[in-house]
Amino acid sequence: MKNLILASTSTLHGQEYLEYLLPVLKSHFKGCREILFIPYARPGGITHDEYTQLAEKAFANAGLQVKGLHQSETAIAAIEEAEGIFTGGGNTFLLVQQLYRYNLLTPLKEKLEEGTPYLGTSAGTNIAGLTMKTTNDMPIVYPPSFNTLGLVPFNINPHYLDPDPTSTHKGETRETRIREFHQFNTPPVVGLREGSWLEVKGKDIRLKGEPLARIFEADKEPYEVEPETLLNDLT
Amino acid sequence: MKNLILASTSTLHGQEYLEYLLPVLKSHFKGCREILFIPYARPGGITHDEYTQLAEKAFANAGLQVKGLHQSETAIAAIEEAEGIFTGGGNTFLLVQQLYRYNLLTPLKEKLEEGTPYLGTSAGTNIAGLTMKTTNDMPIVYPPSFNTLGLVPFNINPHYLDPDPTSTHKGETRETRIREFHQFNTPPVVGLREGSWLEVKGKDIRLKGEPLARIFEADKEPYEVEPETLLNDLT
Repeated sequence: MKNLILASTSTLHGQEYLEYLLPVLKSHFKGCREILFIPYARPGGITHDEYTQLAEKAFANAGLQVKGLHQSETAIAAIEEAEGIFTGGGNTFLLVQQLYRYNLLTPLKEKLEEGTPYLGTSAGTNIAGLTMKTTNDMPIVYPPSFNTLGLVPFNINPHYLDPDPTSTHKGETRETRIREFHQFNTPPVVGLREGSWLEVKGKDIRLKGEPLARIFEADKEPYEVEPETLLNDLT
Repeated sequence: MKNLILASTSTLHGQEYLEYLLPVLKSHFKGCREILFIPYARPGGITHDEYTQLAEKAFANAGLQVKGLHQSETAIAAIEEAEGIFTGGGNTFLLVQQLYRYNLLTPLKEKLEEGTPYLGTSAGTNIAGLTMKTTNDMPIVYPPSFNTLGLVPFNINPHYLDPDPTSTHKGETRETRIREFHQFNTPPVVGLREGSWLEVKGKDIRLKGEPLARIFEADKEPYEVEPETLLNDLT
């Protein structure tokens, strides 16, 4: 039975890395000693080591050790043996390209379907959806496919941002971009605002955190859902 | 000799479509009767016909007729015979996917290298660079490659946006995204603010419009350039 936390962001404004999620992580990873960290999205181009140190520091506050996937001799075995897994944010194109490069999509999917606790933030949440086609990231590398883990039967847009009514900028709003997505794709999209996460326990997918989420379905007006709403029927 | 206008945006806040470019377009397309419009990026999911009508209305103010590429029986022949070409903005992934689907990249590149006047806005400007890897768009479809026309020896980031110092949002700034690009790619990136365009005449690439542009080179601090600066050495 799946056991996932899919968070919009790792960090809230003015807080430390993962600080707002710390109480949740303590119970989520209860019984684990060491978390396997997938650092491939490496935000801002920091190294795998630097990124892993950041995760180590945050998880130490929850009494958990962290091992970077890049430190393992065989990545597939490291995934198969992990007690808990965390994929951090950064660039989704890079993350997905690396997961394909090392043939990790299938082992990771199987491992998470068996119930290994997982935390994703931002790009690490994006890959839990059907495809990465609703990422906000820049396509700095070309992955062999946009298909991702499909651990939930929809797509996720992390860092969901409402249109700014005072803006004079003519770049597309997030809502316009997701509308364009639905011209060519049918899966629903969950716009996860910063401070929200999805808690996936077996078949139950529940919105957690303080903000409402905005749901986009093809050929329907977008709508808001409250925290604690079950999204099991969103397919 | 190349003759291109590569604009950051089609529209400035509070203005009509292409309004701020109208004086420039009149002289740029002088001698043309009809402009071939490439509507594939279709912003917000509008149809090719709707998008072509928008272009028709704007170009009528410059005394020019417009024909949509989708209205041609053979797209390659339409490009080869065009007097002038305009590619409008929207979704760059979709635009590039369609150009590959109909094998139009090479005919379009050859045609523009011969000197046919071209206007690109937003996505239509993005494709003039080496790759589409610095687009801001959502990857709603999977193109067979991110390589684009390479009419200039660098990449372009249209709708370039400075970081908002008052923002509490944790999504990446544009500058962070471009820094991530340079972890994996060497070409310079021109951050073109709305209201700017590049004027390419033969070998001369000149920044036009009112805003400064922000230039990103690998392993260098980003820097600003003034309007009228020649960017011929930016490779």
